[in-house]
Amino acid sequence: MPQSRPSPRELLMNASMGDSPSVPSAFRHWFEDARKSIYTHVERVPLASVTGWHCDPDAPALTHHTGRFFSIEGIRTHHAGGPVEHWDQPVINQPETGILGILVRRIDGELHCLMQAKAEPGNINGLQLSPTVQATRSNFTGVHRGKSVPYLRYFREAGAHRILADSRQSEQGTWFLRKRNRNMIVETAEEVPAAEGFRWLPLGELLGLLRFDDLVGMDARSVLACLPFPPDAPASPPGGRSGTAPLLSWITEARSRIEVTTERVPLPRLERWRRDPLAISHESGRFFDVIGVRVKAAGREVAAWGQPMIAAHGTGLVAFLVTRVEGVLHVLVRQRVEPGFVDVLELGPTVQCTPRDHESDSGTGRPRFLDEVLGAGPDRILFDTVLSDEGGRLFHTRSRHLIVETGHLPEPPGYRWTTPAQLSALLRHSHYVTMQARSLLACLHALEHPAYGTAEAGRGEPS
Amino acid sequence: MPQSRPSPRELLMNASMGDSPSVPSAFRHWFEDARKSIYTHVERVPLASVTGWHCDPDAPALTHHTGRFFSIEGIRTHHAGGPVEHWDQPVINQPETGILGILVRRIDGELHCLMQAKAEPGNINGLQLSPTVQATRSNFTGVHRGKSVPYLRYFREAGAHRILADSRQSEQGTWFLRKRNRNMIVETAEEVPAAEGFRWLPLGELLGLLRFDDLVGMDARSVLACLPFPPDAPASPPGGRSGTAPLLSWITEARSRIEVTTERVPLPRLERWRRDPLAISHESGRFFDVIGVRVKAAGREVAAWGQPMIAAHGTGLVAFLVTRVEGVLHVLVRQRVEPGFVDVLELGPTVQCTPRDHESDSGTGRPRFLDEVLGAGPDRILFDTVLSDEGGRLFHTRSRHLIVETGHLPEPPGYRWTTPAQLSALLRHSHYVTMQARSLLACLHALEHPAYGTAEAGRGEPS
Repeated sequence: MPQSRPSPRELLMNASMGDSPSVPSAFRHWFEDARKSIYTHVERVPLASVTGWHCDPDAPALTHHTGRFFSIEGIRTHHAGGPVEHWDQPVINQPETGILGILVRRIDGELHCLMQAKAEPGNINGLQLSPTVQATRSNFTGVHRGKSVPYLRYFREAGAHRILADSRQSEQGTWFLRKRNRNMIVETAEEVPAAEGFRWLPLGELLGLLRFDDLVGMDARSVLACLPFPPDAPASPPGGRSGTAPLLSWITEARSRIEVTTERVPLPRLERWRRDPLAISHESGRFFDVIGVRVKAAGREVAAWGQPMIAAHGTGLVAFLVTRVEGVLHVLVRQRVEPGFVDVLELGPTVQCTPRDHESDSGTGRPRFLDEVLGAGPDRILFDTVLSDEGGRLFHTRSRHLIVETGHLPEPPGYRWTTPAQLSALLRHSHYVTMQARSLLACLHALEHPAYGTAEAGRGEPS
Repeated sequence: MPQSRPSPRELLMNASMGDSPSVPSAFRHWFEDARKSIYTHVERVPLASVTGWHCDPDAPALTHHTGRFFSIEGIRTHHAGGPVEHWDQPVINQPETGILGILVRRIDGELHCLMQAKAEPGNINGLQLSPTVQATRSNFTGVHRGKSVPYLRYFREAGAHRILADSRQSEQGTWFLRKRNRNMIVETAEEVPAAEGFRWLPLGELLGLLRFDDLVGMDARSVLACLPFPPDAPASPPGGRSGTAPLLSWITEARSRIEVTTERVPLPRLERWRRDPLAISHESGRFFDVIGVRVKAAGREVAAWGQPMIAAHGTGLVAFLVTRVEGVLHVLVRQRVEPGFVDVLELGPTVQCTPRDHESDSGTGRPRFLDEVLGAGPDRILFDTVLSDEGGRLFHTRSRHLIVETGHLPEPPGYRWTTPAQLSALLRHSHYVTMQARSLLACLHALEHPAYGTAEAGRGEPS
């Protein structure tokens, strides 16, 4: 490892890369250099004047004039027995399945990842680290009229290489309607040079960069989460509480029991949503706005365009409570029902909310375990960083990522202690683990990587 | 095993249970006895006079007056690049997820299954063997106004027992729109007496009954297919052609590439479908009819009712080509796109068609491998029995089930050699293996069961 080993304390900080001594200087120079040639200038514009889009105030949906890319539509969700039984909202509809792929290669025995410095209009800080390939089908069929996608052939002809991960995974089901991307990790034995704007990073170094705010992008975290965790020690007795059969049965039971349906509703008829020239917003001021932007970009396929985006209100919070059971790390996951999921529910973080929406709530009105994670002392906080959501559709939308150690708590209905290896096994398949939980799993990979190993920090094992 | 071991030759026959010496007489007496008290009388009636249903000629869909149970609706399917790119058809819409459950118990070391003799209106021969529980949600919420479902608690409180299988599996995607049932096998340690119409059968005996025409029902076969096959010998090198990662990647690639969508169309506007008083039929005379029946039943929850049903034209054919690779049985599965599937495609039989529709076809017009399976000599036919489709919705609808041994053939696009253990691993999850392939897997379980072991018959291994 070329970098110095950071102290556990350093790992706990929301750090700014610019002044951290633990960022390898070669990476820092490359990234700062990329910033000069790869950037976007983004300007908010009235919705009705988004170039290339049909965004009239009475439009049932916001659509591109080609009918491609994506659209903003209205949906009404029915979830009988849920905490809210019916609600309306706008949602991003992008039915095609894109590819998010990281090309990896073993160099001197260590896995290296080919990462891209990419500017997206929604990024709060311009440049973030993206997978080798981040391509919608429009990208590879040429609707963008842009350049061909570098390195795409390694993923489209993945059978010629070694496939470490290849499954379709959901995006956030509160913002995207049944959107999924193909998350791929492909190992090549070829010596593949890094093109301009790309860099081979040792896996340990890349995972270490997760502790800097808004540096490793959402798509990169989604794919990194699909790296398998080492298998658990020999399985517990079959049929036992912690085995895979009961875990799958728990998911099957809930997916069979819960009925959630969505129907399309024209945007102007969404209840409790209002449109003004600049945004479609909820009357409570909560949730998110649909806004319009004009983008000028250098270093990506097309130089200037307009588009609508979703801008969340307030910084989100996503958190895992973790504990050790007989020495094995366990993560408390929660079944989450979201309207955009393909299959009823997926497993999400222990806590997921926008804390400022709950400032005046008390007692049972507060999200479960919110106080547990926000009130944890520094010795129990294993990870604490603010990371960005995907900047191609989401504008300045970010979540604080917390991993907090706790004792063994009983599981309320809908919650379950699982091991990272069990979640890895689910991630070989589609639609089991939410984007937010995957993002936290990428952070857990950083904690468990031998270069850091700070999951030891607050473990409190007998010495 | 109480029964005599059948000869391989006997296993090849389409047998009628009545005169077969290999049916244990205790089972035969019980089953013939049950026939006296459990039966349905079914009469075809004009669609417009199905009791309790809205089936006017101009009805956009055929619906029950309560709005429950199921409906017959019209859909238009678009499958860009498929063999047929657009088509219309009626389809059964039953969105709720029911339970198909077999309760099992070890008696003197052998697994026994609690099976039910059940009469369904569509059964060609009245009584067939069903799972312990075969319940729609309407059954357990009481919409049927019928008796409570026996043994249901073992499945609704499965966590108190040992769960051997619990996943949602599709029904036929050409007849059912996104219908799935929860397929469960639950092992109890309790001594559970068999109620009237139920019987504990040793697994070997039950599997042996699969070789009799129309005896083991579709739902029972669906659940039996979820019994795990023994794992393969230690995995081949990771990333190899036959590993699980390439198999999953093959499915992910196709599901990401293929775009298939359905939209609702009112029944009277379905192109190429016609309605006369007795049926909705395709103008070619192929595929299936939607018909109406009046049912009088004894031995089930409700004594008399009317309903629409689907009646397929001609006996279907479903077939697996199998081969041995280095001593390990392999099955040639095919990716099938059907409009009713939840997730684009599932893995189906090597061959699935209605042979009489292809009598006048020749050369490339004939389904691939159809001649290979129909032309196989008796020494290569490991299994050959006609089995019924689900008689609650499908009227006298049956398929010949063939398992044919072959040499190792190259895989055309969309086909792949897999092991039964790999298919078992997929069956722990939902929506990977079609109903027809599961039905054949149940037959493969019969061949591989130590009580029969006739997969040896035509194996032609060096002696």
